[in-house]
Amino acid sequence: MSTTLHAARATTAPVVTIDHGTITHRTDSLAGEEPLQIRAAGPEQAPIDIAVTMRTPGGEEELAAGFLVTEGLCDPTDIDGSSIGDPATDARPDDTITVHLRRPFDPELVRHRTTVATASCGICGTASIEDIARRCAPLPDGPRIDPAVLSGLTTSLRAAQETFDSTGGLHASGLFDPTGRLLRAREDVGRHNALDKLIGAAVLAGALPLHDTLLLVSGRVSFELVQKAAMAGIPVLAAVGAPTDLAVDTATRLGMTLIGFLRGERCNIYSRPDRLGIEPS
Amino acid sequence: MSTTLHAARATTAPVVTIDHGTITHRTDSLAGEEPLQIRAAGPEQAPIDIAVTMRTPGGEEELAAGFLVTEGLCDPTDIDGSSIGDPATDARPDDTITVHLRRPFDPELVRHRTTVATASCGICGTASIEDIARRCAPLPDGPRIDPAVLSGLTTSLRAAQETFDSTGGLHASGLFDPTGRLLRAREDVGRHNALDKLIGAAVLAGALPLHDTLLLVSGRVSFELVQKAAMAGIPVLAAVGAPTDLAVDTATRLGMTLIGFLRGERCNIYSRPDRLGIEPS
Repeated sequence: MSTTLHAARATTAPVVTIDHGTITHRTDSLAGEEPLQIRAAGPEQAPIDIAVTMRTPGGEEELAAGFLVTEGLCDPTDIDGSSIGDPATDARPDDTITVHLRRPFDPELVRHRTTVATASCGICGTASIEDIARRCAPLPDGPRIDPAVLSGLTTSLRAAQETFDSTGGLHASGLFDPTGRLLRAREDVGRHNALDKLIGAAVLAGALPLHDTLLLVSGRVSFELVQKAAMAGIPVLAAVGAPTDLAVDTATRLGMTLIGFLRGERCNIYSRPDRLGIEPS
Repeated sequence: MSTTLHAARATTAPVVTIDHGTITHRTDSLAGEEPLQIRAAGPEQAPIDIAVTMRTPGGEEELAAGFLVTEGLCDPTDIDGSSIGDPATDARPDDTITVHLRRPFDPELVRHRTTVATASCGICGTASIEDIARRCAPLPDGPRIDPAVLSGLTTSLRAAQETFDSTGGLHASGLFDPTGRLLRAREDVGRHNALDKLIGAAVLAGALPLHDTLLLVSGRVSFELVQKAAMAGIPVLAAVGAPTDLAVDTATRLGMTLIGFLRGERCNIYSRPDRLGIEPS
């Protein structure tokens, strides 16, 4: 075995940094995020769709082999190579991989499995961001938020987290008004579930669209969280962790203000800084 | 809106803590993790399976409503209440929720969506842990690991992470030999993908089962990661973050050593401490 790490792709994007009130325009590296369609095929068998996962590009053959084995869909010795998608028939050939097996793959294995719908429309090859833009009502130009409000958000959310302090294992999502007052918070082992619970509470209260609010999530920001916030009409999304490139692209296309690395008096703004009174570079 | 947080369930478990060489037996709180089957039904329509998600119990009605709306499967005003599963027909009624809609739900919305197979067999109601135990070969009694080895693992993995330092957005998984030497590392925006890539590389190298190894993951430990490690034959799983209760239950049932909160000279051991030369309490 080798001790080198397969290099995952990173891209760069313009970012506005606020550090104790000082505003700086610079570029930042972002982790890559793209859908991967995993298929399996036995000898003389047409490829069967197994799963689509949002992943960092790189190591696709390893990812597909590891997925099939660790999910119990084939034995390690069944694997006889893999091939990427066909440009003639696949809308995203580089995001499609077929694992070739030495025995036929039983489609019932997939049909009887637990499935989770994901945010991506990658399976049909449509452009996911444009698809979301079509389905979402446009976000409002507001609200206008004082950057000084941001530094208090993480403390407020943490104070509302009943379970976090005892287990250390839960993600949280908090909804705030433009002055930084916490309106509602939810937590869950899954960051997407914490956000679904938060937005679901607003749905059940008849409060959508959430146009005059600001959302804080405890972890990193992937495409899926930006989509969910946009579907609820939330114009400002802040996160304690880093965003992916697809999260930034999606927020930019939808006109959402995306804030990352929000820690005390410091944060990065990746899109629409005007809602914080900051001119784009 | 209210500022209270819907309380997520937390359970307790015995844990062995190592802090700068001092071993303490105590109990620890764990975040809850269980599958939830989400269904939708229009008037006079039989419920249609939408998704199974691993979630922290609590707020099921909110989670289901938020999922349907943020995934674009219904409008907020379509929702007309929800009901939990039927003990007469559902194997896990408390883990099943049907959202009732004011108009028929189009099953094609689900069929045409991107799906991701998950680790859980919750959809058919079978006991997931037992199912994994049946599919996995038993883990070996070894390897025997010097607890002093643990403190160097996170530094080694971080040093191998090429992308993390620039983006801050990637999870990593590293495979080590029993002396703490890094054998292989992979990273990805998804923690399950990072582990699939790592195990997939071993699959492609013909190296399974990975009986004489130790795995370190950068984030929290859910059920899914324990399952994937067990399927690859890895007997020791360490994590920088917290485990869920289902992760601990699964590791205990499978005879895997599960270590959480591994930070410098400190860590918690949730199962099979004997591989570290420590007697169970």
